[in-house]
Formats: sequence, structure tokens, C-alpha cells
Amino acid sequence: METQPDIERYPAARLLAFAKAVFAQMGCQPAHAQMAAENLIAADQRGIESHGVARLSGYYRLYQAGRLKGDARYDWVHQTPATATLDAGGGLGLVAGQLAMAKALEMAKAVGTGWVAVRNSNHFGIAGRYALMAAAEGMIGFATTNASPLVAPTHGNKRMLGTNPLAFAVPAGKYPPFVADMATTTAANGKLEILQRKQQPAPLGWIQNSQGQPTQDPHALGHGGALLPLGSSPQTGSHKGYALGAVADILSGVLSGASFGPWAPPFVAFLPVLEGQPGQGLGHFFGAWRVDAFRPKEDFLQAMDTWIEAFSNTPALSAQAPVRIPGQPEHEAEQDRQTHGIPLLPAVVADLQSLGQATGITW
Amino acid sequence: METQPDIERYPAARLLAFAKAVFAQMGCQPAHAQMAAENLIAADQRGIESHGVARLSGYYRLYQAGRLKGDARYDWVHQTPATATLDAGGGLGLVAGQLAMAKALEMAKAVGTGWVAVRNSNHFGIAGRYALMAAAEGMIGFATTNASPLVAPTHGNKRMLGTNPLAFAVPAGKYPPFVADMATTTAANGKLEILQRKQQPAPLGWIQNSQGQPTQDPHALGHGGALLPLGSSPQTGSHKGYALGAVADILSGVLSGASFGPWAPPFVAFLPVLEGQPGQGLGHFFGAWRVDAFRPKEDFLQAMDTWIEAFSNTPALSAQAPVRIPGQPEHEAEQDRQTHGIPLLPAVVADLQSLGQATGITW
Repeated sequence: METQPDIERYPAARLLAFAKAVFAQMGCQPAHAQMAAENLIAADQRGIESHGVARLSGYYRLYQAGRLKGDARYDWVHQTPATATLDAGGGLGLVAGQLAMAKALEMAKAVGTGWVAVRNSNHFGIAGRYALMAAAEGMIGFATTNASPLVAPTHGNKRMLGTNPLAFAVPAGKYPPFVADMATTTAANGKLEILQRKQQPAPLGWIQNSQGQPTQDPHALGHGGALLPLGSSPQTGSHKGYALGAVADILSGVLSGASFGPWAPPFVAFLPVLEGQPGQGLGHFFGAWRVDAFRPKEDFLQAMDTWIEAFSNTPALSAQAPVRIPGQPEHEAEQDRQTHGIPLLPAVVADLQSLGQATGITW
Repeated sequence: METQPDIERYPAARLLAFAKAVFAQMGCQPAHAQMAAENLIAADQRGIESHGVARLSGYYRLYQAGRLKGDARYDWVHQTPATATLDAGGGLGLVAGQLAMAKALEMAKAVGTGWVAVRNSNHFGIAGRYALMAAAEGMIGFATTNASPLVAPTHGNKRMLGTNPLAFAVPAGKYPPFVADMATTTAANGKLEILQRKQQPAPLGWIQNSQGQPTQDPHALGHGGALLPLGSSPQTGSHKGYALGAVADILSGVLSGASFGPWAPPFVAFLPVLEGQPGQGLGHFFGAWRVDAFRPKEDFLQAMDTWIEAFSNTPALSAQAPVRIPGQPEHEAEQDRQTHGIPLLPAVVADLQSLGQATGITW
């Protein structure tokens, strides 16, 4: 997260209203438009601008291209007492994700844990938001998705996996939830885009070029290169990042009946959907464990507070960079933005203005 | 996995019988001694020698030090239809893990998925073996554990986490299961031990020294250094490896009521157990999802075969190093060792001979 004090800030309510109106124009019923808009604003509030309102015009272009349905039917196609599969009908992942996690929480309340696979979906925004829905109910939450192929597996020279995030959220007693929400690559694509705009080199270990060689050129991805799995090189464990991204792809795509691997449909409307799809749309996978399904809740929350205090107090290499609890930076961004509004880059504001003109919705 | 053609090989049955007799002498009932011995031999057969019979004398020393009970009671202390908690009574993780995964499979058969937390346990061997128990039943399996602190969190200069592995196993149709079984560090401790024996430098990114600086000295861990989380440095995503190790610690330790973080009890009997334990012993966490709780099983197996074929056929950077499917190298080791026996280093054989003399069991 970069601090950008010179960037203009906008109240969340204004961005939410605009996004909701755009989703409604795409055919979403009011409750779904609200869910989808809330999801984007939540990303902006947590400081993950790459998945916030900056993406709104991308969803709209997919809709215009006939590759995303605002008025999709979200159908439950398979169910056991603790598991279910949702067919998102080619609709919004932002809506499907929220419906799916709500179902997982309902099952966890009844039988201790609940798991939902989603197929025939689209980009679902930030994974951490769904995991946090569980933490808000005193449960441990899990969310993952597959995504457009950008990542080469270890030893490979072709984009076979998306940045496929894994997210876990854990409630604590007196502290904000622990939230691990990470792409299974060394760096998320959003971080690379920042370097592209600034014309700055990428650290070695983030990308390989079209020949499969390490490069610092932040534009290499646009010229046949690929993002690298977490671990960066075989010597430093990239087979582990590859395996984690593969697990996300299998749980999200293969288990749900969605597409997977190199066939995962791209988010950007200008890239074609590959022929010979082995499944339907993008896939996601969600889960929740009720804490008191394993031990008394109060005992758990107290132990979690002890965990957080122990790790916060780890002797640090430098006083300027203390050891953080996963999710702490995003929580701090949230506090700041609830008070001061959401910073938007001029390019994002211009994009939203164009979207307003195209849709006739007042920006 | 190194190939060591000059190392003597031993039939699995001989090693199994010896290990079983040692566990029996520690007070294990015959069924438990068998489970524990099978677990170590399975590691050797999969080429993960660091977790095989080479560890047998370590378990025996913990038993002698009064820190591991052969005749422990394994008690179910908490249960819902899809979750349960096992108190391992200070016994063997090798036994507790097998009992716990069997319970998870039983629950998954009934309600679609099953999850078991274990506390008051000890080292459980290779995580992948438990995940594979699920794949053998046509389910997706998950296993994790916490472990003695060896790893510094990002920006930290103290060992706060173990190498805390995550393992997933997924059944396929005509191919062996997909198995991701990985320490959440750049390199497992066993790989570092190989370099120590050979007096070879470690790649940068594996360890930091006692001042928290990157080092290639493979002995740095013995002089106040620490292993690094997957990702190696803040610039290349070590906060992700730290977060994954933390998730393993929280699911295994905090959720079960085991100890966690810097308090996780050491495997080696010569290191003391820290005062002020926040829980009991080591913890583990296991889960299984029935594939047909999400979609018809045949459809899943066919899609998984398509996945495996697509990734196996990824264009490779070099004809000498094709893209592998996670678990494939271990499967190949298993095939080789079932035919040709298990290779043991002379130092391991000498250690087993001493153990034979100490216990009066014929090596």
C-alpha cells in the first residue's frame, strides 16, 4: 500500500451509489447491485485499489461484450448437509461469492463447518472480503478463486495459472481479525501495474520474459512474459507457489465444474475466451469453520489474542519496520479511509467519468 | 530428492518390523506401533528420508525424556456432525494423525466433509500421508501441523514459527493423485541438513544469521539464525510465506488448544520445553472433502485427468526439466523403492544399530 497524500479523496457513499447504479443498468436486481458495489468499495477501503471501483468499467465492458450477465440466475445445483455447489449462471462473481459464503456460514452454524464451490462465474473481487464475512460471525473463513492465466508453472514457459489468491480470516478477542489474503505469485499483478505507470524496474523474481528468463522489465507481461509463482525460482521454492496456485485452481475450477488452468476466461473483454473449454466460466471455493465446533469460543479468542501479542512483540530487525500481523495494514487503511475517504488516481477518476457518460449515470 | 546409487538399500518390511518393535517397547499397543511404523516407512518410500526411519531414535529419546507417551490415551473431547477435536494425551502424532484423518473421512462420508483438530500431540511425520488417506477414498484431503520454532516472521529476528507444512491430495482418474506437501518455508530443514553434511553453501533466501542478515552459511541455524518463510525477502513476498505458516499454526495450535508459535515444543529431547505454555503439546489439523459432495465423481476425475495432462504438456524452458505435477517425483520414488528397497545413509544405519543395542531389539 502506498500513501498518496496528494491524491483526491472521495466519500465511500458517493462511490457506492455510482457503482450500484452501473450494476443496476447491467440488469442486476437491486440487492445484487448493492452486494456487487459494496464489494468493490470494501476493496478500496482496505487499500486494495486494484480490485476496487477502478475495475468497474472492466465489468461493464465484459457485460457489453455479452460475457457477463447482470440478470443471471444463481442456482444451487448440488447439496449435502455441509457442502453445496452454486451455478452462477454467467453472472457476477461479486454476487455469487456473497451468496456462496452466506450459505457456507449457514451450514457451519448447523453442522460445524460449511463449504461451497461456485462455477460459471466471473471475477469475484478481493478474496479477503468473503473470509472476513466468517470472522464477523466468530468463524474462521476461507476463500479462493481461479483467474485468467498469467503465471508460468516452475520450469514452464507458458501462462497456465491465474494469480489465484488464498484468503483466511480468523476472529480474535480484543484485536481485529487476522487476515491472510494473498496471490499465490511473488507479487500481484496490481503491484506490477504500479511499476509500469512509474516506469520503474520490477524486483528480480516477479516475472520472466517471453524466453522464460528472469527480467526486471515491468512491461514483460505484455510481451509474452509471465508472472512467477511465490518462491520465484526453483532454488527458492517456486514449485511451492506453483502447487498452491494449482490447489486454488483445482478447488475453484475442477471441483465446481468451472473452467481451469489455461482455459480460465480472461477478465478483460479484449482477450478471447479459448476454444474447447473444459468447464463453465470462472470458479471459486469458500469455507467456514465454527470456532466452537472445536473448542469453547472464549478459550479460542483468548488464545488468539495471545498469538497476536506474541507475534506483534517479535524482536524486529529495524525499529522502522516492526513485525506485522497479517491483515493489520489493510485494517489500518480501512480506519483511515472511513475517516478521510477513498483516494482515487486521476486516471481512475477519468475512467469513471467516461463510464458515467457511456451509461448516462451522473458521476 | 537426490539419487544415491551407491547407498545400500533395505527392504521396507525389515525397516517396518524394526520400527514397530521399537514403538512397542515404548508402550504402544500393537495397532498403534504398526500405524507409527508404517508412517515412517511411507516417508522413506516417498523419498522424504528426513521424516522416515532416520527419525526413529529421535522419537525414542523423547520417550526416554518423559516427553512422549507410548501408551497415551487418545480421547475425543469435542464433536459436531462435521468436526471433532482429539486430545492425543501426549502420545505419538504418527498415531493421532491417523486416528484423526480416519475420523475426518468417516464424517465426510456422512455429511460431505469432515475436519479434525488435534492437541497435546507430538511430531506427526509427513503431512502428505494423511492427505493421501483421503485421496485413496476418492476425497480431497488436507493436513497441516505446527512444529518447533525455526522460522523468523518477515521483519523479525526471532524464531517464532515451525516449518509448518500444508498438504493437499487430490484423486485423479487414470493418473496418480496430485499431492502438494510443502513446508511454508523457502526450504525444509532436511534440505539444509544435506548441505551441512556436504559443507556446501545454501542458496541465498533460505536462512538469515543471528543478526537477521541473509547468509549462505548452512550452519547459521545452529548459531542463532532462522529459516526464512517462503518468498525469502519482503520484496519477493516473504510476508506470504509467513502468513501461510501462521495459518498452519493457528489451525493446528490455536483452534485445537495445543501450544503455538514460539512455545511449540521441540522435537529434539535436548532442547527444553518453554515455560508458560499457552496450550498442550503440538497441534495438527485435518480435513476431507468428498468429491461427489460437489459434483458427480466421474466428471471430477475426468476433469482432473484433463488438468494433469494440460500441465504435464506445458512448454518447458528446457527438455531436461519438464513441468511436473505436484507429487509426481514422490510417486516415482515410491515406485522405485517398492522394487529396489529403501536407501539408507551409513550414518542412519549406524544410528539404527545403536538404537537396536539400547533397546535390545535385533537390527
